[in-house]
Amino acid sequence: MKALIGTVVDAEEVRRNHAVIVSGDTILDVIPAGELRDYSVDEVYGGRGYLILPGLINAHTHVAMAKFRGLGEDVPIETWLNEVIWPAELEWTPGEIRKWALLGMAEVMADGSTTINDHYFFADEIARAAEELGIRAFVGQTMMDLVDFPIAAPEEGFSFFRRWEGKSELVTPTLAPHATNTVSLELMREVGELAGERNALVHVHLSQSRGEVREVKRRYGISPVEYLQKAGVLGDNLIGVHGIYLGDSEVSTYAKSGATLVHCSLSMAKLEGRIAPVIELARGGTNIALGNDSPNPVGLMDIFTEMRFAAVLNKVWRKRTNVASAKEVFRWATVGGAKALGLKTGLIKPGYLADLILLNARKPQFLPGENPYSHIVYSARGSDIELVVVNGEVVYRNGVFLKLGKTLEELWEDVL
Amino acid sequence: MKALIGTVVDAEEVRRNHAVIVSGDTILDVIPAGELRDYSVDEVYGGRGYLILPGLINAHTHVAMAKFRGLGEDVPIETWLNEVIWPAELEWTPGEIRKWALLGMAEVMADGSTTINDHYFFADEIARAAEELGIRAFVGQTMMDLVDFPIAAPEEGFSFFRRWEGKSELVTPTLAPHATNTVSLELMREVGELAGERNALVHVHLSQSRGEVREVKRRYGISPVEYLQKAGVLGDNLIGVHGIYLGDSEVSTYAKSGATLVHCSLSMAKLEGRIAPVIELARGGTNIALGNDSPNPVGLMDIFTEMRFAAVLNKVWRKRTNVASAKEVFRWATVGGAKALGLKTGLIKPGYLADLILLNARKPQFLPGENPYSHIVYSARGSDIELVVVNGEVVYRNGVFLKLGKTLEELWEDVL
Repeated sequence: MKALIGTVVDAEEVRRNHAVIVSGDTILDVIPAGELRDYSVDEVYGGRGYLILPGLINAHTHVAMAKFRGLGEDVPIETWLNEVIWPAELEWTPGEIRKWALLGMAEVMADGSTTINDHYFFADEIARAAEELGIRAFVGQTMMDLVDFPIAAPEEGFSFFRRWEGKSELVTPTLAPHATNTVSLELMREVGELAGERNALVHVHLSQSRGEVREVKRRYGISPVEYLQKAGVLGDNLIGVHGIYLGDSEVSTYAKSGATLVHCSLSMAKLEGRIAPVIELARGGTNIALGNDSPNPVGLMDIFTEMRFAAVLNKVWRKRTNVASAKEVFRWATVGGAKALGLKTGLIKPGYLADLILLNARKPQFLPGENPYSHIVYSARGSDIELVVVNGEVVYRNGVFLKLGKTLEELWEDVL
Repeated sequence: MKALIGTVVDAEEVRRNHAVIVSGDTILDVIPAGELRDYSVDEVYGGRGYLILPGLINAHTHVAMAKFRGLGEDVPIETWLNEVIWPAELEWTPGEIRKWALLGMAEVMADGSTTINDHYFFADEIARAAEELGIRAFVGQTMMDLVDFPIAAPEEGFSFFRRWEGKSELVTPTLAPHATNTVSLELMREVGELAGERNALVHVHLSQSRGEVREVKRRYGISPVEYLQKAGVLGDNLIGVHGIYLGDSEVSTYAKSGATLVHCSLSMAKLEGRIAPVIELARGGTNIALGNDSPNPVGLMDIFTEMRFAAVLNKVWRKRTNVASAKEVFRWATVGGAKALGLKTGLIKPGYLADLILLNARKPQFLPGENPYSHIVYSARGSDIELVVVNGEVVYRNGVFLKLGKTLEELWEDVL
């Protein structure tokens, strides 16, 4: 058994000077630190001035895109995608994907995410990298049939799903149709049928550009949300991403469906100058999760940065400051992500999975300490994380990835 | 002599594998690293994978407000100011100010700012803390005569200025009338006369709330910018801060005046949900600088965070992504700040003051490295800074403040 000591914060409560007891892959108990002697623990981490948080859930990533960081800046989203990103992606080989995916997900873990939900090509390589690193990963092989993109062949998406279903403790395969304008209604129906049969998650980009909305309208005469509904995928198992061009009636339909919306505010703000109607979606009952999207465009795969942007961008978008409070965006990054993925995590309670992060808050920016939610959202950086526990196992500590036996700096050296 | 080795980046150019030679308080030369043997240097810092940047200039701060971090979240700016901040400020004592100002400016330095432009009460304490730490500081004693606020008595502002004028190598006193609605036209005129006589900087909050605009209009029948003009302070020596409610004709008048506008985008976005018209001001010729404002509301006194927000918030505010490029906001944080304060710094050139920061970029988020401006604005964090040089002297290295002989963690302990 191991114990983490500090101020325990989840989206429900703040417990100062407490210990979280971990046994196997599970949280056994949360107790006042003084009662620790009642347990026979082998390893103790943290102490005074530390924060213990649920592992953050990065509900939409393309980790391998670390290779493209900083390329194609300050251009419209369609130029970025069609002229910079897609041509570069056609050059991928499995070996290159493996190398950059490992680097990208290592960075994500070091900055505090214990779970990723990745959507990309050569998904076997990404799944293997996740096992190698020890991060919890939902992985989908990107499928497209309306764009000529050989590495996104639909049959590969289905066979990847079947290969990995029930195979790994940490890796769960998803079905990952690319977007509402790049996947035919027929293929999306096939995805929906398999998802229903196997109770699988469907992870899809939704309403992320004006072009997408226009194309779906032209092709089927309906909106992207109506398209998802017509294909039979709009429900509890759906994880839609972005949604920046959702219209009012789409918001209402989506909110009633039980689907999750993943808010990647920094990514869309930088690429499109727009923010999704997440406040309206949440008011209607939609589960909101957060994601970093990809190293290009966001730069940092740090959910603390994403929480900060989600809190601030939603205020500016509505010219109102009483939305997206610190506690609310912290809920999106923890409970929201867990609900999206069907994980018993996101809160620190007995019986929950032991996916935890330990943050060294022995620094000026965490004073005076009276409002931990504010400090987490506005003062914390991924670089404050000292320890990451996934599934009860310490997988990262002070710059070292324990399963890889490598440091962050060594990973940087490896790809140079 | 000392040398810093790495990729040298300023707002004009990127020089890979170069060395910056520092002699006394000045940059002596910038040379290819291979030519370093031509110089007899005693100390060498950095190397492969390091970035050398001009020290960032934090052109508007209230560092002592570190004491209030996280208090009064998610309320309108006037509630925040009148019900949370001002009552707390009336409890200040000189000793408390000294302690929290030192903590706040240490945090600012550790995160990469070599210069602050501070506006606060008990300014002698702040100036002394700056000398103790070794940060370059412009310090103004806040003056108000239209609000009953004993610690902001105007005569104290003038006498502070006289006490510190020409006294210190690192500390320059400024004149710091609080804002256009809290200072009478008579007092503002007196400030303008002294500033003209002594060639002093005037540092003032401008158009930061609807209430401010309303009050100036009611009192004098004019806008805040017209008020500054009428008082004779609108010119090269003026550093106006925020400007979120500036009207079009004010933008035009301000742009012609030679004054600087300090953009604190994160602070205003969080408190008011609004962004200043800095793109329009810059287009008209206004010099733009960046500032963190204060630990409450921003959380992190990190100009990298501020650059990131300035780049993204300006895009969202205009729903256009071709504004506030990474290189442009980096210019605001370096050249813009230097111009505002009349400092020969902000670029890395022979003859410039040796205010430099060394950033450890031997980390995944700085790959692939082809676009250093993007990596600086979107991937860097203050926590990547390893070394800070102010006026040619190493004042911070790897968590240790060399003049104080203390670490960041010890400073945190000190105030507990």
